[in-house]
Amino acid sequence: MQGSAQPTTPPAAYTPTDRTVPTRAPQRASYDKALVHAILDEGYVCHLGFVRDGVPVVLPTLYGRVGETLYVHGSTGSRPLRMAGQADPGLPVCLTVTHVDGLVLARSAFHHSMNYRSVVVHGLAYDVTDPEEKRTALDALVDHVVPGRAADSRPANKKELAATAVIRLDLNEVSAKSRTGGVNDEPEDLALPHWAGVVPLRKGYDTPVPDAGLLPGTEVPDYLAVP
Amino acid sequence: MQGSAQPTTPPAAYTPTDRTVPTRAPQRASYDKALVHAILDEGYVCHLGFVRDGVPVVLPTLYGRVGETLYVHGSTGSRPLRMAGQADPGLPVCLTVTHVDGLVLARSAFHHSMNYRSVVVHGLAYDVTDPEEKRTALDALVDHVVPGRAADSRPANKKELAATAVIRLDLNEVSAKSRTGGVNDEPEDLALPHWAGVVPLRKGYDTPVPDAGLLPGTEVPDYLAVP
Repeated sequence: MQGSAQPTTPPAAYTPTDRTVPTRAPQRASYDKALVHAILDEGYVCHLGFVRDGVPVVLPTLYGRVGETLYVHGSTGSRPLRMAGQADPGLPVCLTVTHVDGLVLARSAFHHSMNYRSVVVHGLAYDVTDPEEKRTALDALVDHVVPGRAADSRPANKKELAATAVIRLDLNEVSAKSRTGGVNDEPEDLALPHWAGVVPLRKGYDTPVPDAGLLPGTEVPDYLAVP
Repeated sequence: MQGSAQPTTPPAAYTPTDRTVPTRAPQRASYDKALVHAILDEGYVCHLGFVRDGVPVVLPTLYGRVGETLYVHGSTGSRPLRMAGQADPGLPVCLTVTHVDGLVLARSAFHHSMNYRSVVVHGLAYDVTDPEEKRTALDALVDHVVPGRAADSRPANKKELAATAVIRLDLNEVSAKSRTGGVNDEPEDLALPHWAGVVPLRKGYDTPVPDAGLLPGTEVPDYLAVP
């Protein structure tokens, strides 16, 4: 449709690259933006990888998403955030989010597996210096932990903003990978007496524990309802 | 006690190094071996970081522990496993395991946090070529998913062993980091009307889903009991 007068909608998928096409189980890979966003939005921590003195470092950290951009924050003294501020044109990172959905117990040791969903993002991380973008990013980080929470808390003041470093990573080179379904045993193993199947893992909030100093009458908000 | 005739017990802690002393919140770091082992043993996937063409790659993968050694396995065609087999003296990796235990909701956006426990391991990963060590590693990988399961499944045969690559990473340069406890709000924020507290996250097995082809009368094993 390029060059036509029709309005263009954004592509629904990321373009695969050498880094985002897996060498193993390529049928489990997806570049669908909606799937990638859903996996990212469900996670609590990402694992952020960067290279320091030639060797890899992988740290767990909070993150937030605004459209096609991820934000990671931390103290201005934190290593990757300091490195991103000094890197030109940006710090090469790999950001990975994984959900383990179930344990797949096959009759054979070899076919044991996990049901999981993961997203791997490659790219350059940039220090966020614009105050407005920083505020937007911090709201996204709080809302990522509990949707709706940013509006129900005291926003960061100037001193807190100054103490917080934020880096951005655009979603360009991205892939999702997942395994779903049941056990894939060899036909000759089906008569073995071992139990086989999938053990789902529990997800979600448990009963909230209020702070001892809450004002009397402060109710647990609806957004923390335990299903 | 060095040089004495008394039997020596192994040190109970890893020796901190430049890479394992965090720049942020050093009071949250620990080098205690028992704590490190407990965090590792509770995890399902680790995030394995390595450097490829000068940039970081972080992939989720299963792992197992035997004493002071971690094992990661995969297809012989998988990238990091192939790279470890070719690297001399080994492939520099960073292996990280993280548990998110609770969401910490403060009255201020700034003091929102997570209760978590993580372990970061730095070191060189080596291809495991000894067949006995490979078997031990694969048993550890299955028992890591569900303790006791290796003995209750059909062991890998020669063809399966040949199709599986295993790498080892010794626990030498290791640290744990954790946050526990409640909300740390500023004194001047305590009178704000926002709910504050900790939201624990659910953990553990949900009801197992048996494979459709199970032999009649195959009961769910005790090691999958839902508490």
